[in-house]
Amino acid sequence: MVTHDKSKPEEASGRFAYEGLERVFHEKARLGIMTSLVSRPKGLVFSDLKEFCQLTDGNLSRHLQVLYEAGYIEIWKGVHRNRPQTLCRITPLGKRKFLEYIAVLESVVADALAAAKAPAQRTGVVEGWTPV
Amino acid sequence: MVTHDKSKPEEASGRFAYEGLERVFHEKARLGIMTSLVSRPKGLVFSDLKEFCQLTDGNLSRHLQVLYEAGYIEIWKGVHRNRPQTLCRITPLGKRKFLEYIAVLESVVADALAAAKAPAQRTGVVEGWTPV
Repeated sequence: MVTHDKSKPEEASGRFAYEGLERVFHEKARLGIMTSLVSRPKGLVFSDLKEFCQLTDGNLSRHLQVLYEAGYIEIWKGVHRNRPQTLCRITPLGKRKFLEYIAVLESVVADALAAAKAPAQRTGVVEGWTPV
Repeated sequence: MVTHDKSKPEEASGRFAYEGLERVFHEKARLGIMTSLVSRPKGLVFSDLKEFCQLTDGNLSRHLQVLYEAGYIEIWKGVHRNRPQTLCRITPLGKRKFLEYIAVLESVVADALAAAKAPAQRTGVVEGWTPV
């Protein structure tokens, strides 16, 4: 039997709300796109981005549109090797906001790793409680 | 004028696909819930979770249901201080999977911070390209 600890936990209100986790970046595909773009101030063409992030044309287009509308990337059109191509480039705002987001992500990782040092799960019934 | 670098980037296919980013955890609210629970093997009552994560009753219930259906948390019912209450506790599977997810998040942070060391954005026109 495990007893539930009735003492008020010491954590502050909103301690785990992670307000700084900008939703535009906190999406698996867009996280990959931004990480690809942040190292390439000259931009990346659509086909390379697609390969790095393993996205379909439709999905990549949709996520680029979200990043473009937020002002985090620029989209350029050109003709290269006789084919119309799309070039994506991070904006200075996009770089700044993305690095702010990454700093929050770092704090999440630190919180989770610190928290995980808690004693191992004790299985079994919690006294006074009924499982759903 | 900035010229677009036409050389093939060195990154491998799928380098930024982040397949290990389990979608159940990669949601702001559920990330907060799991980080709260991972340090408390005895569980947390609904009202404390709500306060830590700054969620409404409806939102918290919905996210707990997703975590419960994935087998990552247990939900217990009980009466405490003459009120029916809900206790949430992480499962051993939930802890293991969450720490796997956190390891992927750590690699995302490392990738982004390494990438951000690239030279600062050069603004202006990219030669041969037209802005959208």
